[in-house]
Amino acid sequence: MSIFTRAILEINLNNLLDNYKVLQEIAGSATGAAVIKDDAYGLGAERVADVLYNKAGVRCFFAAHAMEALPIVQKYRDVTVYILQGIGEDSANIFRDNPQIVPVICSKEMLQYWKDLKITDRKPAIQVETGLNRLGFREADLAELSIDDLALFGLVMSHLACGDEKDHFMNEYQLNNFERIKAKYFPNIPASLAASDGVFLGKKFQQNIVRLGAAMYGINTAPYRPNQMKNVVTVKAPVLQVTDLAKGEFVGYSATYRAAGKRRIAIVSIGYGDGVPRSLSNVGKVFFKTAKGMEEARIIGRVSMDNIICDVTNVSKLEVGDWAVLASDFYTLDDMARDAGTISYEIMSRLGKNKRFVRRYIG
Amino acid sequence: MSIFTRAILEINLNNLLDNYKVLQEIAGSATGAAVIKDDAYGLGAERVADVLYNKAGVRCFFAAHAMEALPIVQKYRDVTVYILQGIGEDSANIFRDNPQIVPVICSKEMLQYWKDLKITDRKPAIQVETGLNRLGFREADLAELSIDDLALFGLVMSHLACGDEKDHFMNEYQLNNFERIKAKYFPNIPASLAASDGVFLGKKFQQNIVRLGAAMYGINTAPYRPNQMKNVVTVKAPVLQVTDLAKGEFVGYSATYRAAGKRRIAIVSIGYGDGVPRSLSNVGKVFFKTAKGMEEARIIGRVSMDNIICDVTNVSKLEVGDWAVLASDFYTLDDMARDAGTISYEIMSRLGKNKRFVRRYIG
Repeated sequence: MSIFTRAILEINLNNLLDNYKVLQEIAGSATGAAVIKDDAYGLGAERVADVLYNKAGVRCFFAAHAMEALPIVQKYRDVTVYILQGIGEDSANIFRDNPQIVPVICSKEMLQYWKDLKITDRKPAIQVETGLNRLGFREADLAELSIDDLALFGLVMSHLACGDEKDHFMNEYQLNNFERIKAKYFPNIPASLAASDGVFLGKKFQQNIVRLGAAMYGINTAPYRPNQMKNVVTVKAPVLQVTDLAKGEFVGYSATYRAAGKRRIAIVSIGYGDGVPRSLSNVGKVFFKTAKGMEEARIIGRVSMDNIICDVTNVSKLEVGDWAVLASDFYTLDDMARDAGTISYEIMSRLGKNKRFVRRYIG
Repeated sequence: MSIFTRAILEINLNNLLDNYKVLQEIAGSATGAAVIKDDAYGLGAERVADVLYNKAGVRCFFAAHAMEALPIVQKYRDVTVYILQGIGEDSANIFRDNPQIVPVICSKEMLQYWKDLKITDRKPAIQVETGLNRLGFREADLAELSIDDLALFGLVMSHLACGDEKDHFMNEYQLNNFERIKAKYFPNIPASLAASDGVFLGKKFQQNIVRLGAAMYGINTAPYRPNQMKNVVTVKAPVLQVTDLAKGEFVGYSATYRAAGKRRIAIVSIGYGDGVPRSLSNVGKVFFKTAKGMEEARIIGRVSMDNIICDVTNVSKLEVGDWAVLASDFYTLDDMARDAGTISYEIMSRLGKNKRFVRRYIG
């Protein structure tokens, strides 16, 4: 018997690369750009960029903030990184010094700011609003732009609101808006509409550049059918203690679980401080790999900052030092998110920021 | 008008220090140890330790994992850091090399592991189980320990399940269990039962060492009365765009918000990738400081990774570059947590891990 205290986050870069290649194949002649914002959804932007640059020839990236692009452009001189949140006073210096970092301009105010900077060595992208009603120029704003203004841009883009629902009316609606805007204002520059979900909606949505993020990281962005992507993230945490509960005993903060009979419990060394959603309290589950296969154990009581407590009464064999599997090929972050009442994007982003994990890259 | 793209996390160390002093005063003769696990709830363990060591004379700390203690003990040679998750093969080397880092032993298996290591230059703490049913020796386990085993320990501790509910029956129940265990097995060593919430339950609960964490960071751990603590965390994010919605337009992913009439919206540069709970979708709120005071604006549509969208129709004055205040003295993380359906501990831990913030320390 061994004792461990730290949980493990395993990131399978081979699977990530395979996912990219599948997505690029689906996208056909469109360029598969990689979305590495939020530290590549927490998985490590530099590691992800390394594998995509070297093994898939990716030269076009999207990040949210200019600072996120710096390590990438400093390492690879022939890549372009588009910045979705655009440019402001708090990032102007980064843009000034790095011609490979290109802002996505979302408003007339930001366009004026860009023009005032007189940076002429690159063409920014423009975000146009087609129905998401997030960042982007409305058609009324576009109508006010001069021909010179319109000629500034090197890429026109928009973003789907409901791309993960194949038959949602918003998809055709946004596509039509996008095509009309393109034809009227940007007939001669490349266009990008689809992120990971839009890629699966077919050629019309793929345009010239697809922005591959969530699906590349293994998330099912086409949940109306089984996931075509390979799992990228595995999370496991060590059992620190195994003990018995008598009938009537309570478990965890605020005593939200009470044992209806004798129970065997395992205290596992991972909690919301590590990125496990507290909303898994009394509803989440973990798995133990035994001779019988993957055996399930429910999380009982509240998830605390550093620990979860699991009902292992029916697990056939378990001792201190065994590993509780929280996410794997078998029960992915999509599954965990469903139990937690959120989306896997949010959980992945949280897990990846935890410095207490032993972090292992495969590939 | 200015444009900014990055959100700001402001951590008021002066208020944190004041909170510590108030808590220490309430704790009377008990030693006020500081809980700095999970990078001091995300606020920065080294910065927090600096101010507490230098301005409040704190010499006793608690962390969850041995690795969390390293920067502290390497800087300050006269502090002790107790490690709540104890010791295992993945941390034994850290303990071997650092006599100031002291494990909290929670099980007979871990005790055996500790004894096998033959580290004799410090006395570990022992966690005993009194009702939380998380980590700790049960009374039946204690009964099996030899006199030599019992003499190994330098501190006995336990943890309350319901310390934030003043009249909860569990508090007296756990106190009685703790006193009985102390008297029988550990009559001659210091004891620690109370964390931030237990401090407010009175002298009997305070024992010899109180473990000050959440309340020091400004969280109300005695929610049955107004918060006595000062606020430590302020979060604000820049407005990237202000625009109008026509009646019937949708907002955000999955089109979960539809405008019943004309609306003015602000797109704010912060999202769940920065630690804003996605559960604030369509229910959260932000505030804008105007000549009229703090004006409220509801989050509409889904929180996305990098942005939230707010209904600012009724905000008297607003333009691109203004700051949406997500957490402040006026609307604290406790308030945000109530709206998000969780606890402020979880949100604080998430926000603090975000590298995209401009992070500012006061004090």
